[in-house]
Amino acid sequence: MSNRMWGGRFKAGPDAIMEEINASIGYDKRFFREDIAGSIAHANMLAKTAIISEEDRDAIVQGLADLRDEIEHNTFNFSRALEDIHMNIESALSERVGKAAARLHTARSRNDQVATDFRLYVRNTIDLLMEQIGDLQRALVKRAQEEYASVMPGFTHLQTAQPVTLGHHLLAYVEMLSRDYHRFMDARARLNVCPLGAAALAGTSFPIDRDMTAQELGFDRPASNSLDAVSDRDFVIETLSAASICAMHLSRFAEELVIWSTPQFGFVSLSDKFSTGSSIMPQKRNPDAAELIRAKIGRIFGAQVAMTMVMKGLPLTYSKDMQEDKEGAFDAFDTLSLSLAAMTGMVGDMVFDRDKMAAAAGAGFSTATDIADFLVRTLNMPFRNAHHATGAIVALAEKNNCTLEQLTLEQMQSVEPKITKDIFAVLGVENSVQSRTSFGGTAPDNVMAQVNHWQAILGA
Amino acid sequence: MSNRMWGGRFKAGPDAIMEEINASIGYDKRFFREDIAGSIAHANMLAKTAIISEEDRDAIVQGLADLRDEIEHNTFNFSRALEDIHMNIESALSERVGKAAARLHTARSRNDQVATDFRLYVRNTIDLLMEQIGDLQRALVKRAQEEYASVMPGFTHLQTAQPVTLGHHLLAYVEMLSRDYHRFMDARARLNVCPLGAAALAGTSFPIDRDMTAQELGFDRPASNSLDAVSDRDFVIETLSAASICAMHLSRFAEELVIWSTPQFGFVSLSDKFSTGSSIMPQKRNPDAAELIRAKIGRIFGAQVAMTMVMKGLPLTYSKDMQEDKEGAFDAFDTLSLSLAAMTGMVGDMVFDRDKMAAAAGAGFSTATDIADFLVRTLNMPFRNAHHATGAIVALAEKNNCTLEQLTLEQMQSVEPKITKDIFAVLGVENSVQSRTSFGGTAPDNVMAQVNHWQAILGA
Amino acid sequence: MSNRMWGGRFKAGPDAIMEEINASIGYDKRFFREDIAGSIAHANMLAKTAIISEEDRDAIVQGLADLRDEIEHNTFNFSRALEDIHMNIESALSERVGKAAARLHTARSRNDQVATDFRLYVRNTIDLLMEQIGDLQRALVKRAQEEYASVMPGFTHLQTAQPVTLGHHLLAYVEMLSRDYHRFMDARARLNVCPLGAAALAGTSFPIDRDMTAQELGFDRPASNSLDAVSDRDFVIETLSAASICAMHLSRFAEELVIWSTPQFGFVSLSDKFSTGSSIMPQKRNPDAAELIRAKIGRIFGAQVAMTMVMKGLPLTYSKDMQEDKEGAFDAFDTLSLSLAAMTGMVGDMVFDRDKMAAAAGAGFSTATDIADFLVRTLNMPFRNAHHATGAIVALAEKNNCTLEQLTLEQMQSVEPKITKDIFAVLGVENSVQSRTSFGGTAPDNVMAQVNHWQAILGA
Amino acid sequence: MSNRMWGGRFKAGPDAIMEEINASIGYDKRFFREDIAGSIAHANMLAKTAIISEEDRDAIVQGLADLRDEIEHNTFNFSRALEDIHMNIESALSERVGKAAARLHTARSRNDQVATDFRLYVRNTIDLLMEQIGDLQRALVKRAQEEYASVMPGFTHLQTAQPVTLGHHLLAYVEMLSRDYHRFMDARARLNVCPLGAAALAGTSFPIDRDMTAQELGFDRPASNSLDAVSDRDFVIETLSAASICAMHLSRFAEELVIWSTPQFGFVSLSDKFSTGSSIMPQKRNPDAAELIRAKIGRIFGAQVAMTMVMKGLPLTYSKDMQEDKEGAFDAFDTLSLSLAAMTGMVGDMVFDRDKMAAAAGAGFSTATDIADFLVRTLNMPFRNAHHATGAIVALAEKNNCTLEQLTLEQMQSVEPKITKDIFAVLGVENSVQSRTSFGGTAPDNVMAQVNHWQAILGA
Repeated sequence: MSNRMWGGRFKAGPDAIMEEINASIGYDKRFFREDIAGSIAHANMLAKTAIISEEDRDAIVQGLADLRDEIEHNTFNFSRALEDIHMNIESALSERVGKAAARLHTARSRNDQVATDFRLYVRNTIDLLMEQIGDLQRALVKRAQEEYASVMPGFTHLQTAQPVTLGHHLLAYVEMLSRDYHRFMDARARLNVCPLGAAALAGTSFPIDRDMTAQELGFDRPASNSLDAVSDRDFVIETLSAASICAMHLSRFAEELVIWSTPQFGFVSLSDKFSTGSSIMPQKRNPDAAELIRAKIGRIFGAQVAMTMVMKGLPLTYSKDMQEDKEGAFDAFDTLSLSLAAMTGMVGDMVFDRDKMAAAAGAGFSTATDIADFLVRTLNMPFRNAHHATGAIVALAEKNNCTLEQLTLEQMQSVEPKITKDIFAVLGVENSVQSRTSFGGTAPDNVMAQVNHWQAILGA
Repeated sequence: MSNRMWGGRFKAGPDAIMEEINASIGYDKRFFREDIAGSIAHANMLAKTAIISEEDRDAIVQGLADLRDEIEHNTFNFSRALEDIHMNIESALSERVGKAAARLHTARSRNDQVATDFRLYVRNTIDLLMEQIGDLQRALVKRAQEEYASVMPGFTHLQTAQPVTLGHHLLAYVEMLSRDYHRFMDARARLNVCPLGAAALAGTSFPIDRDMTAQELGFDRPASNSLDAVSDRDFVIETLSAASICAMHLSRFAEELVIWSTPQFGFVSLSDKFSTGSSIMPQKRNPDAAELIRAKIGRIFGAQVAMTMVMKGLPLTYSKDMQEDKEGAFDAFDTLSLSLAAMTGMVGDMVFDRDKMAAAAGAGFSTATDIADFLVRTLNMPFRNAHHATGAIVALAEKNNCTLEQLTLEQMQSVEPKITKDIFAVLGVENSVQSRTSFGGTAPDNVMAQVNHWQAILGA
Repeated sequence: MSNRMWGGRFKAGPDAIMEEINASIGYDKRFFREDIAGSIAHANMLAKTAIISEEDRDAIVQGLADLRDEIEHNTFNFSRALEDIHMNIESALSERVGKAAARLHTARSRNDQVATDFRLYVRNTIDLLMEQIGDLQRALVKRAQEEYASVMPGFTHLQTAQPVTLGHHLLAYVEMLSRDYHRFMDARARLNVCPLGAAALAGTSFPIDRDMTAQELGFDRPASNSLDAVSDRDFVIETLSAASICAMHLSRFAEELVIWSTPQFGFVSLSDKFSTGSSIMPQKRNPDAAELIRAKIGRIFGAQVAMTMVMKGLPLTYSKDMQEDKEGAFDAFDTLSLSLAAMTGMVGDMVFDRDKMAAAAGAGFSTATDIADFLVRTLNMPFRNAHHATGAIVALAEKNNCTLEQLTLEQMQSVEPKITKDIFAVLGVENSVQSRTSFGGTAPDNVMAQVNHWQAILGA
Repeated sequence: MSNRMWGGRFKAGPDAIMEEINASIGYDKRFFREDIAGSIAHANMLAKTAIISEEDRDAIVQGLADLRDEIEHNTFNFSRALEDIHMNIESALSERVGKAAARLHTARSRNDQVATDFRLYVRNTIDLLMEQIGDLQRALVKRAQEEYASVMPGFTHLQTAQPVTLGHHLLAYVEMLSRDYHRFMDARARLNVCPLGAAALAGTSFPIDRDMTAQELGFDRPASNSLDAVSDRDFVIETLSAASICAMHLSRFAEELVIWSTPQFGFVSLSDKFSTGSSIMPQKRNPDAAELIRAKIGRIFGAQVAMTMVMKGLPLTYSKDMQEDKEGAFDAFDTLSLSLAAMTGMVGDMVFDRDKMAAAAGAGFSTATDIADFLVRTLNMPFRNAHHATGAIVALAEKNNCTLEQLTLEQMQSVEPKITKDIFAVLGVENSVQSRTSFGGTAPDNVMAQVNHWQAILGA
């Protein structure tokens, strides 16, 4: 509907209205490559099985290759009267190669054709998104390596809870992205069956070779049930779901960047490239890219809602409702791709303020649990009792307006006489993070081991 | 992102990525008229309050009018580097009228400017949608008038329950659309306050006259709180909600048309204009427009989900996330507008098969409740007992493989001896619908009264 | 399904499965009062129109009143075999008053009965929610009055933009809640038509008086179309939409409270009553209630999604799908009610740190726009030029590591020679907020005027 | 909130409000088994690594086993003041085994504990759902075997397109369910990592053995990043997504059953067990279970929307918002489980009307494409030309008001002289379905082969 309100034309006659609501060429031309690849595979198979002649096959294949060139070079004229990409290409092929073109549609239908095209398109999209997720993971691992021992507050409820290392925090997102990567991989494996040959809905009486077309197009196998093959849009919804969860992860990191870049936190400065300034307030830097990434989950998930709603209660097999499968999906995948690119760029050149992070990490008696753990470990106190004694020690520090490290041994012994000077070895944020050596814990050595682990996997 | 996957460029440098994610001119140029109207009102007010001179005002107003002409005639060059519609126009104005243009932005900011523009745009859109709802109502009332006495099955659970009149059924949608109309009207009234003068977020120290700009732009009053004025996007969500409910109604009627146009039902034939045929199966007519309308609620409601998600948990005042308010809303409103136009077209020229409907209405002992009501009314039987006796009479008809009308009086008296021949006056679908004269009931006279009522309201 | 996984019983026989999926008494007993009120109104009308005798009416009305007492005192035994609240009450009434009970269902059906009950329930719920919104508004206005002149940073992009008053910020939420209030009011007005008398779907042949029942139940009028009356669930979706938008507003304020109560911001302390502490870290206070309120929009909006999905593509009239209208709506309304109560409580006893807010308001040259406005106003510079000169002044302050107030007149004149000492009257956050006197602006006098305005409206 | 509106108490004091919004014991007691299993594994590990003594371990393990018995026998008193299942059990354990209980919480926190419990719960739920999906597949395969050669119309746009076999149609759902099964399997594999030992968020300084606890609880491995381990709720969203897609499939079949059981279609009769009758209209059978299954996708997907919304923009690590992860998920999984059980029951005892289906399959020249294929195959006509000739033949049959089989050879030759009498071998619905022997096609032999394939996989 290009750039203006449809409504401006709502007095349009039925023909204009029907064309407007019915034609898909405005967006499905996007998969001309997939459509042509599918037709070439089909033509090759028809010739191999002697359903068409080799001459016809050659004419068709050459004609299609020429059309692909034209479209790639923007010299092809798309016609909205021809409704969709399939008819645009079939019609042009017919003009170019004549009668041979009329044989191409033997033993297939638009129903299996569009299902094949769209699966190829989504598969290609997934490949791209997986590569981009890898890029973002590599960018994060690189920063995690630099910050493997930098101390920052570990938050719960956005309140300082315990000190952690910044590298550890960044690697948490590498974990999330790894699950995203595998969700896309699973979706890809599940969608990679070939509908071609399901024909309109019932299969065909021609002696086609569905294994051959499936293989040529890189599918694992032909779909086993023709009715399902033309009706299934799970693959769109599942891929949108993987995209939504990935976008959710990006929104969490984006929110952190927005908060961390406030003057109050001051943990991070985003580069000029991904923020906008104010000519009047030179110190002000608006984290535009982070905010937009935070917001983008809306439209990605909105597309998933839309598609789920479309498919709800739809009888088999093909219904025109299914034409709604493309625009929202295109937009959602583009949006995730762009968000990943922007986040990768931001991660690469943002600047952390290690001093501010370290100072914040030490505030608020954040190592109190280290005292409790010391009491359990050294004095064999039950955890709940140790917890209680620690509360008393922290209260003492608060009353004296000092840090835990600044309490004297005597002061601590006034709470629990059996405490020894060894306790000072667990106080302080550096000691605290050093001590968290359990697998998966935040100790710098652990973080570096994880960095190495990920570098090996990601080839960074 | 026009016609190809962003990802194809995902190795693009930061500048390209940031421009891609940040620029809104691709879609917000759609409200150039609103932006220019807002600027003209602002300039008039600045002159009236002597903040700028009358000469400057005149230069600005003329310059803006010229720009509007250019854009309307497609001779204006939009620049993506200038990000959005506001900067594109401001920059062009500056080229044309020089220093005066630099005074236009006094006492305002992009934050109140975009909020004003978008409210104007949504208000205009609502006006259009309300007009289109009226068109569809008029089309339905016209058909209801024709079919005020045509009998069809009234369904519950998609099973025949009681006979009703087709006119009555069509008027049910007129009722739904009336609620939709008023929901849009309420949303319009609520959004019709003017943010202009809220400036960036805090108001301004200039002696502006907000009542004047509000009035010139057709708003009821200026917004009362500057922070709220630039932060509020309720009006988008509320309007999307009204659109979703309206689309839900259309989806219900569309589903009925799909079912009614199956060979099994055969209640309706959709015209060629809104269906597609098959060159090979001439009798086959696919209800494409109805299916698409049924599906469109997905994208409309998806836009509402998206916007609600964007606004969730967003601190005051303006955040860049809010830039996501437009594209989805534009698409949703366009989609509803198109769906209304298509439905109005379909209603106008579809052909009902009155005989098939009447035959279906009479099947399945659909007037059984009329017998029960007769027993209550005439014999003063308690309703639950009458219900029981009726079951026995229907069972008798079923056993004799005849309709209720075909039973003899004796047969009926074998169940309930007090039944008189008056009972035959309530049997048959015509008698049944004639009898439902309670207010809101399906009797033809009622339907015609409602037709008259709606014609008076709708001016049909 | 109480407290365990259905699946534990998934080998259950068909009867158990059907009862589990079909019975609604587990949740619809919640509107026993509405069901009984509807039946009493119906009985009164049946007697008035001589469809039943006065004796029967009296027996029915007394019987129903007794049943209501029993249910209120928890001495009534609900039976799942009787499926729903309507049959539970009808069956019990029959046991108590015998034959008269069998006449109560004359000229009505479960379809119009449940539609009436649910409308009454939603109407009552709206009344409660509107009262609660008023409570929260009053609590906010009270705090706004106290803080009408307290200065805090006005944020855009969560970056300090310009100083504002805390009272002004709090009143922004009063505005949002006012729109919420009116959205509920509009939904209430639209739903307040009476379905009773629509019977199963077609109306009835009994000479009922629908105006009488509508009036007795407090409805504005009877519904005009019987098919629509039993099919309409707009009123649920519209009310859920109003609830979602209100929950969105609460989520925004909740997010602010979470951020403001971090040690880094330190703008507010939430009371012990609405936060949880840590026995080990006495200074740590988790803003649990705020976090939960922030999250609750999920389930409220989830209910709206669910109901919209249920109604999509549903043919007229009643389908069993519609039984899904209640549980989600109950949960959503309860959740909003609880969130409003919790937010009202939090607002009442949270403690603001005015010093921290004021200090933050002054940081970052937040009054730079005041300089620009001064240059425009005093020297008649075009806004864009003034903007440019201000940037140079701010850069000077930044270079000298001082605030704008701390620059000397000479320093400022080095940028713009025409600046006079009057400029010092606009510097400083107090001066800045004082100057924003445009309608809706943040000046303390404006805020106090708005406080008075709201107190008059809200009766606070 | 049990059985009444919270609002009734909205004037309650802060303590009641906070308890209402904060406590989770009302629903999280559902995973007492998982909580106890996790604690036993933790105790065993603590003893093995000498962090606690074997005596303490024995006391703890015995105490927990006793508590599990009590809860299973409903003799345990849950306390809302103790907030959640963890504190209820810890407190009860403390009463029973004294000091040993106080050592159980060493080296863990509620954050990793609840993450572990919920993963175990979801894993168990997935196992159940997978088993139920298998049950439904087996029921469908059994019916497909019976109906492998029964002919019915294959629909596109709900219009008859080509004849297919009913067995083939039923197996399409087996395919969909197989994807659902594998989606759950993938989600299960991805969630099966153990958070235990992540402690509050940073890991611990105790020498714990995370591999040991992971193994005892049946996890594949411990989670690699402690921050991620306590923050991740992907596993809930991914499982909800698998559930939504499965529910979408059920909604499609349910819609078909609703349509097929109308008198107009008459393809299927649902048994009394899964439908409700009318005492007054004995032939009326409402497909209640099918309608409810069709509707249930609403609440399942609504839960997914809710959880996605909760997680959007949530900073690491644990925030109280995450407590919203359970109720919606419980309800969604219960609902899917119930829907699967009901659908399995319905499939098992519904009765198909083969005659009506076959008659419908043959109507509307549904074998026209078989003629076109014949012309291509036998006469080597290009497909598009064959398509054209077929249209003329069908028009002839329509004009003569006969079926395609009833045309004479001469009549057909009047369209295309080269047609031979062999054409009669492809006419008729039986011939048509017999001919669709391409892999995945609808030919009875294919269907039986697929039945055998699935029986081998499903052990039916």
